[in-house]
Amino acid sequence: MSVRYLTARLAQQIDEELMSSAAYAFSLDQLMELAGLACAQTLAKVYDVRTHPRVLVCCGPGNQGGDGLVAARHLGMFGYQPRVFIPKLGSKDIYQRLKTQCDMMQIPSIPPSSFSSSSASNSETTDALEEALLTSDVILDAIFGFSFKPPVRAPFGDVLKLVRDSRLPVVSVDVPSGWDVEAGPPQSEDQKDGVVRLEPDVLLSLTAPKMGVKSFKGRHFLGGRFVPRTLEEKYRLNLPAYPGFEQIVELPRLSEKDPGDQKL
Amino acid sequence: MSVRYLTARLAQQIDEELMSSAAYAFSLDQLMELAGLACAQTLAKVYDVRTHPRVLVCCGPGNQGGDGLVAARHLGMFGYQPRVFIPKLGSKDIYQRLKTQCDMMQIPSIPPSSFSSSSASNSETTDALEEALLTSDVILDAIFGFSFKPPVRAPFGDVLKLVRDSRLPVVSVDVPSGWDVEAGPPQSEDQKDGVVRLEPDVLLSLTAPKMGVKSFKGRHFLGGRFVPRTLEEKYRLNLPAYPGFEQIVELPRLSEKDPGDQKL
Repeated sequence: MSVRYLTARLAQQIDEELMSSAAYAFSLDQLMELAGLACAQTLAKVYDVRTHPRVLVCCGPGNQGGDGLVAARHLGMFGYQPRVFIPKLGSKDIYQRLKTQCDMMQIPSIPPSSFSSSSASNSETTDALEEALLTSDVILDAIFGFSFKPPVRAPFGDVLKLVRDSRLPVVSVDVPSGWDVEAGPPQSEDQKDGVVRLEPDVLLSLTAPKMGVKSFKGRHFLGGRFVPRTLEEKYRLNLPAYPGFEQIVELPRLSEKDPGDQKL
Repeated sequence: MSVRYLTARLAQQIDEELMSSAAYAFSLDQLMELAGLACAQTLAKVYDVRTHPRVLVCCGPGNQGGDGLVAARHLGMFGYQPRVFIPKLGSKDIYQRLKTQCDMMQIPSIPPSSFSSSSASNSETTDALEEALLTSDVILDAIFGFSFKPPVRAPFGDVLKLVRDSRLPVVSVDVPSGWDVEAGPPQSEDQKDGVVRLEPDVLLSLTAPKMGVKSFKGRHFLGGRFVPRTLEEKYRLNLPAYPGFEQIVELPRLSEKDPGDQKL
């Protein structure tokens, strides 16, 4: 039995069940901490700190941006030199706390003035990103996750284009940014509308992979070792066994004919 | 430079600084999740799931009991068959949520009726523990941590005695339960007053080791890979380097003449 690929709706439902006080009662702080740790470990597993010390963590405005902030902190603990590119800090209190933790760990933010969403123009933001890319070794793409719905809003269309054009290795979290959660990569680019086809080298799926990444050809890891067996069985997720006490597991590269495709 | 052994006061101060919104702004949920994960990983590193699947996690009423609940959940994810012995659930909301997570993962509690502190008598509690010990392979001692101050209150004196007399391998968290945080193991036993000398096989110190464990002779690990370098330098903690992206590191067994003993 191969792993189940989730629809956007089922991914959302599992997330809600994990955090519902009437069910598993996880806090966002707990899940984000474990997710961000898995992101950092995946990047560290593929890109050695000696060859790729300068990590640019690109954070979106939602929960995946939070995962990115947690990952940046852990990467700092692992000896990397992370920087966070965070053009719009989400409004939830937790993002502010995660950002403070990064600041206190002296992890630089790009652009420095972008702390509040209103303080940097889109062109200042993309200029700062362009410059930062010149002195980075690898990118952690934590821009959009399984809640992403087109269109890509400014400045993220330009951000995706700069990331792609940098030709730096990219580790994407959950769903490569700009890909449709179910339909996968955009078939054709339309840069005016921010439609850019990002092709990450590495992907970390959280909880279970989403339908849109079935065609992903790079190294594919799974993280989020917090899905209780009862939940796994309820939704027939067929998760692979994680090795030992590790928090990530590498998935075999799947052929396009894989039969594990099921909709809820 | 060897690692610094902390006074109770300095351990408390570091904890407060990590969680202060004016400093590192960590939430208890975050730190407890990482601490509990490190506990589970330490146990798994020493006691293989094939030879020691049945883990009895003994939880105290404070934050260390919370670490134990988190550890039990991760041990379940690692394939162990954990049970939690939790005679008095702490009153903070987080303990309730962590307990719910264990319940939802079908991790048994001992005694089953001890969910609220008032529902089981002390003798029912210790009877249930005695029985559980007969079908356990290893104990995770998460009873008392660095906030412990004598005397040991009922039923924990009896609990410590039963744990010690079981002769099962014991993994202690931070400070072996019943040891003085600074002075170390009790010099003589006084079972009427709950003074029992527990001799764990394995110790996981969190953040940095406490002065009381300088004489500890077993395998000694360090966890809590979330102490920012700025904080480490401020308090001259001289933490050892963690390997790769792991969350625990084994410390060398120290001679009793080690000069790293410093008071704040």
